Amino acid sequence: MKEETIYLDNAASTKVDERVMEAMEPYMLETYAVATSDFAYSMGIEAKEALNSAREKIADRLKGDSEEMIFTSGGTESSNLALKGAAEKLLEKEGKDHIVISKIEDFPVLNTAKVLEKKGFEVTYLDVDQEGFVDIEQLEGSLKDETILVSIQHANQEIGTLQDIEKIAEICEDHDVLYHADATHTFGRVPLDVSKIPVDMITLSSHTIHGPRGIGALYVREGTPLKKQMDGGFQENNLRAGVENIPAAVGFGKAVELIDEEENERLEEMRDRLIEGISSKIPDTVLNGPRKKRTPQNANITFQYVEGESITLHLDMRGIAVSTGSACFSKSLEASHVILGIGGDHERAHGSVRFTLGRFNDEEQVKKVIEEAAEVIERLREISPLGKGGE
Amino acid sequence: MKEETIYLDNAASTKVDERVMEAMEPYMLETYAVATSDFAYSMGIEAKEALNSAREKIADRLKGDSEEMIFTSGGTESSNLALKGAAEKLLEKEGKDHIVISKIEDFPVLNTAKVLEKKGFEVTYLDVDQEGFVDIEQLEGSLKDETILVSIQHANQEIGTLQDIEKIAEICEDHDVLYHADATHTFGRVPLDVSKIPVDMITLSSHTIHGPRGIGALYVREGTPLKKQMDGGFQENNLRAGVENIPAAVGFGKAVELIDEEENERLEEMRDRLIEGISSKIPDTVLNGPRKKRTPQNANITFQYVEGESITLHLDMRGIAVSTGSACFSKSLEASHVILGIGGDHERAHGSVRFTLGRFNDEEQVKKVIEEAAEVIERLREISPLGKGGE
Repeated sequence: MKEETIYLDNAASTKVDERVMEAMEPYMLETYAVATSDFAYSMGIEAKEALNSAREKIADRLKGDSEEMIFTSGGTESSNLALKGAAEKLLEKEGKDHIVISKIEDFPVLNTAKVLEKKGFEVTYLDVDQEGFVDIEQLEGSLKDETILVSIQHANQEIGTLQDIEKIAEICEDHDVLYHADATHTFGRVPLDVSKIPVDMITLSSHTIHGPRGIGALYVREGTPLKKQMDGGFQENNLRAGVENIPAAVGFGKAVELIDEEENERLEEMRDRLIEGISSKIPDTVLNGPRKKRTPQNANITFQYVEGESITLHLDMRGIAVSTGSACFSKSLEASHVILGIGGDHERAHGSVRFTLGRFNDEEQVKKVIEEAAEVIERLREISPLGKGGE
Repeated sequence: MKEETIYLDNAASTKVDERVMEAMEPYMLETYAVATSDFAYSMGIEAKEALNSAREKIADRLKGDSEEMIFTSGGTESSNLALKGAAEKLLEKEGKDHIVISKIEDFPVLNTAKVLEKKGFEVTYLDVDQEGFVDIEQLEGSLKDETILVSIQHANQEIGTLQDIEKIAEICEDHDVLYHADATHTFGRVPLDVSKIPVDMITLSSHTIHGPRGIGALYVREGTPLKKQMDGGFQENNLRAGVENIPAAVGFGKAVELIDEEENERLEEMRDRLIEGISSKIPDTVLNGPRKKRTPQNANITFQYVEGESITLHLDMRGIAVSTGSACFSKSLEASHVILGIGGDHERAHGSVRFTLGRFNDEEQVKKVIEEAAEVIERLREISPLGKGGE
């Protein structure tokens, strides 16, 4: 049964590519030493070479230097390190205490900012428009002498909106403020060139691109003031302690290597077909996020008069895995802060469904999803207490 | 060549057991969803069940409850969470600001304590005796009304000394002070029963027992005051944010399942043979740590008049991987703080070699290691500038 599942929740987690697993295996079974030549034996040196080669592959994709790439346990840790690390360092060094983020950041940035706020930092939460774009003028107006850092995501986790990070980075540079971008949902999928765009820190994730879980990275431009958050050993340029997860780093490197432009174009085509198919076959739908400036893999649609939770349940019974915009990583049934952030009401938030494409999806699956969704929505509306069905 | 390496550095990292890898695979290739039923599809529910089953296996080994087991990215993160989490919480709640650790803690505890000291906490560093045992009277005398937490390891990372944690836990309980034990080097190898011993928090690691890297856990007794350190989502009982590393958690659970008493006895026999063989065949050696009350897998020996670095290099050329006590996770050539802590001088520290046994070592290997070590030491002493050879 699992074999047949049409999995469209690749934003939360992806199937690991078998070639990634093959790449990892030797570092679990053969070259399993820690990455150090300090122990003075050759297996450690080989392990270190593998780690650094993975580091280079990942840095190359951003046109950065491998020494600017810090491995972490995942995107959550990367964003924690970026925000807390810069905030603590610049409060200590220069007495600065102001942070700017967008209202629709993912939880690692949003909740880290809230924790810093409780500790006494001032946080500005920037508004976004109906498609999820940050108000550039408001951003510029919010910056002041005390501003440490701006953290605005490259793309949104739910609605796929691609921010104009070139513009954002330029403004931050002009104001001498650090810029951190959460690129969890764009790394590998949408180009980002740090040799041209002055981003200072970038959160990267592996499990969103068919790499292993438990590994991520933070790109840290040389010279960026940053205080270590995980204390212990002196690994990762003395910015992140802990025995290096070499098998996962190697897998992450392989995952990056396996993504090419062709694949991203294929995802974009499937995304467009999915959006057009659903919009034309199913009445009363709203596309959340912009039509074009969105990640190639994301479609997020509100089906009016129906709850997202019911849709995912019914699609699951038909072998299709998607996610709702509500209650995402929260334990409560709170409405998505992203849909509310773009001006949607609770009903729109609760009726939203996120479809995220990945390498292992194909056109046939997209066709099937459109058909099944049309049936499910029709039936649910017939019994819906939210209006339409009762007419 | 790698096939033939005799690997005796199982304290730093172990070969992953193939049965562990087999257990992990389905969670990378089939049931790869995030661990939530919030998304309302069945793959997420299956993933959650796998995660909780792993959690139970690990908790069972300590006779704890699975809800008291928090997955982290490894032992380093676990110890960071324990120390910083308790310190921040009890400073905030009760104005307490004092921490007690031993001088020979591993870097995650030692350096986290130093960071807390810089932030204004008072830290007492307890002395240890010549075998590495904490001075129990000094411990008791150090506790005061302001004491938040005592962090004393179950066993030492370099010399294997097993502390009397029953006694330590009792004292902490009597004084109403939290007790955290780093059990990175004992979990699975030396029993620890939280239903009998009142330890509040325990750091656990997977990669030391033939499980995957990138995963660890912190046992947190119910009701322990603790402030979350990794902010973002609400995973792990809202004590550690980040998409759960289910394949690694499953692998960790399997690794725990695979250890039995028989294996630990076998390691202990090999350890004794190694210590006796080296002591009898090679003159001028010093066993670091106690003869009996040490972990079953650890032997740490100083070879006088020779540098540890040279020994590891020469053993490596003969296909034997061991580690020196010096420069362990540090980038510098500092002498081991453990050997200095037990009263050794720099020479003793630099001449120490740590042999750590694991599942894949056997009696034949131990015999070979003794023979090769004897030859290496003899040759090195002939050319040593440190004395002996020139006589």
